[in-house]
Amino acid sequence: MVDAPAALKIAVIAGDGIGPEVVAEGLKVLHAAVAGEGTTVETTEFDLGANRWHATGETLPESELAAIRQHDVILLGAVGDPGVPSGVLERGLLLKLRFELDHYVNLRPARLYPGVATPLAPHVLEGKELDFVVVREGTEGPYVGNGGAIRVGTPHEIATEVSINTAFGVERVVRDAFTRAAARPRKKLTLVHKHNVLSNAGHLWRRTVEAVNAEFPDVTTDYLHVDAATIFMVTDPARFDVIVTDNLFGDIVTDLAAAIAGGIGLAASGNVNPDRTAPSMFEPVHGSAPDIAGQQKADPTATILSVAMLLEHVGLDKAAARVEQAVAADLAERQGADGRPRSTAEIGDAIAARITG
Amino acid sequence: MVDAPAALKIAVIAGDGIGPEVVAEGLKVLHAAVAGEGTTVETTEFDLGANRWHATGETLPESELAAIRQHDVILLGAVGDPGVPSGVLERGLLLKLRFELDHYVNLRPARLYPGVATPLAPHVLEGKELDFVVVREGTEGPYVGNGGAIRVGTPHEIATEVSINTAFGVERVVRDAFTRAAARPRKKLTLVHKHNVLSNAGHLWRRTVEAVNAEFPDVTTDYLHVDAATIFMVTDPARFDVIVTDNLFGDIVTDLAAAIAGGIGLAASGNVNPDRTAPSMFEPVHGSAPDIAGQQKADPTATILSVAMLLEHVGLDKAAARVEQAVAADLAERQGADGRPRSTAEIGDAIAARITG
Ligand SMILES: CC(C)[C@H](C(=O)O)[C@@H](O)C(=O)O
Ligand SMILES: CC(C)[C@H](C(=O)O)[C@@H](O)C(=O)O
Repeated sequence: MVDAPAALKIAVIAGDGIGPEVVAEGLKVLHAAVAGEGTTVETTEFDLGANRWHATGETLPESELAAIRQHDVILLGAVGDPGVPSGVLERGLLLKLRFELDHYVNLRPARLYPGVATPLAPHVLEGKELDFVVVREGTEGPYVGNGGAIRVGTPHEIATEVSINTAFGVERVVRDAFTRAAARPRKKLTLVHKHNVLSNAGHLWRRTVEAVNAEFPDVTTDYLHVDAATIFMVTDPARFDVIVTDNLFGDIVTDLAAAIAGGIGLAASGNVNPDRTAPSMFEPVHGSAPDIAGQQKADPTATILSVAMLLEHVGLDKAAARVEQAVAADLAERQGADGRPRSTAEIGDAIAARITG
Repeated sequence: MVDAPAALKIAVIAGDGIGPEVVAEGLKVLHAAVAGEGTTVETTEFDLGANRWHATGETLPESELAAIRQHDVILLGAVGDPGVPSGVLERGLLLKLRFELDHYVNLRPARLYPGVATPLAPHVLEGKELDFVVVREGTEGPYVGNGGAIRVGTPHEIATEVSINTAFGVERVVRDAFTRAAARPRKKLTLVHKHNVLSNAGHLWRRTVEAVNAEFPDVTTDYLHVDAATIFMVTDPARFDVIVTDNLFGDIVTDLAAAIAGGIGLAASGNVNPDRTAPSMFEPVHGSAPDIAGQQKADPTATILSVAMLLEHVGLDKAAARVEQAVAADLAERQGADGRPRSTAEIGDAIAARITG
């Protein structure tokens, strides 16, 4: 448990494309949820992303990183546009934030809210609930940017990618996952890896899960190869409670998890530094969707659910619960509704109104 | 086009668990399909897999590898049992065969046959066909077994996995994929990778697809990050025609593809050496399923469809087509059938009988 701050300082990186639109709704709902909690909210906007890069060539200047550190949390919309070369903003901004701020727990809940359509056939979930959380490692694995290429552009080119996994890094995220599993009714933790092929990293993960399990004897564990995990995602997702996995496998299974739980329009995430040595960052899983930017077509729900995670992280649990309940109520009524689809702001308004009452 | 051999020499590795049962049906159907083609079939059984390892500690002795090389093709059932440490048979037998015999095209078709149940909701495929093929690279990437670990078992352990990608290796598999795409009605090739994070390897793949595209101007290409690809697998799999991807991403998306196309009980694969410098190997995607071994419960269809791929590979196209048609006809009638489930042999008999007429 964390004590709620008297003043909550949020660094806001609205970013590109639909980012500013969905973040506006996220903040609207946040203000509604926090009202009456005795916490004041201060937001600082950071102009980072594709626009900034196009204008200045900068991705994340040291001074802005230092300024961001002075905040309690970060709310990020989405960054990127087709004009920025692949990798520039990923490596220079998004992953830089995750690595510099030691976001070693990339938390991605997957829950199918009543009323939300899934691409899965009804028989897959019949009588069962889809409600699990993926604890994705955020600072190691194939994401470290280690590797290189020689003889680039020639028939003799060789390109490598090195996945780095440390006992330090694996243990802390595994312990976090156990803590979360122990706090849930089913108390089940599934390790997802590919230890039959990636045996060096895989065996480190396996041994670590076994070792940490001794501290959490009431948590049951099992193991799935990542390929088999994707099968269960579509044939029996209710089998999952907490999943712990590496950075790359986590990237893959969380997009799939989002798809079966109603789409990335609803998928929230937290890049969490559980030790609180730096601000954690909350963001929708979706990207900047430049094709619909500025048209009020984007669904802000993923951002609003990310705001709920943010509020919980800073100890405003009741405010977080209010946001989640308002979203759940809104989603339950979406399906039946006919007429034109609501705008981004209308969805934000509706959810905020449910909170304000 | 390849000329069918007068004598077809097949190395048979039935393996462990359900392997022998499904291979028996595969061979039964193969014999039925080849009858009258003027080709004699010679099979040599190789005792490899978990049983062999338990008995002798051997995975693939050099002498047997040399003997296998003397065959036109390999039919493999499944290898492994829970008593063999993870990685021993994968690295020592399965991957060893793929690497030594230069199976650089790991071919995995995904097709939803009429009558087969899918875990996807009806609206996902409404009016559209699920019929694509994944060309998975088979000899490079994170599968090379490069990497290691230091200070194992201590809090200072560091474990690495190195993905190796060469212009030589990427180009040949990409060219194979273009050739396959060009021969299909839709002529569409999707590269699946993660070049925004794995930029060294990713850019090599990207540039290679662009370069080889010049030789196949009528093939249209697109690109998906692997995480996005898993979303489309469940929300719009009909968008795929031919997918080309690396060894690890291919492992993941083909299990997911198998799941949406009716399950791994139906998923066939070919580990193909397109240059024919060594025998290609055909195997069901599923594993040895020790829990149901010896009970005649396994579905031999994946093996039988792998036999169809084998026959096509050796130039027995008509025999291959007969197998596929018989499988399709059998599958179309499975759904309606009631009563007890058929045994492994009964399914094989039924498919063989359709061919024999
Ligand atoms: C944009 C990209 C670097 C990122 C990732 O791969 O982690 C995204 O896919 C995500 O899942 O947040
Ligand atoms: C058993 C394992 C080594 C193998 C792989 O990862 O390639 C399997 O999953 C497959 O897809 O054929």
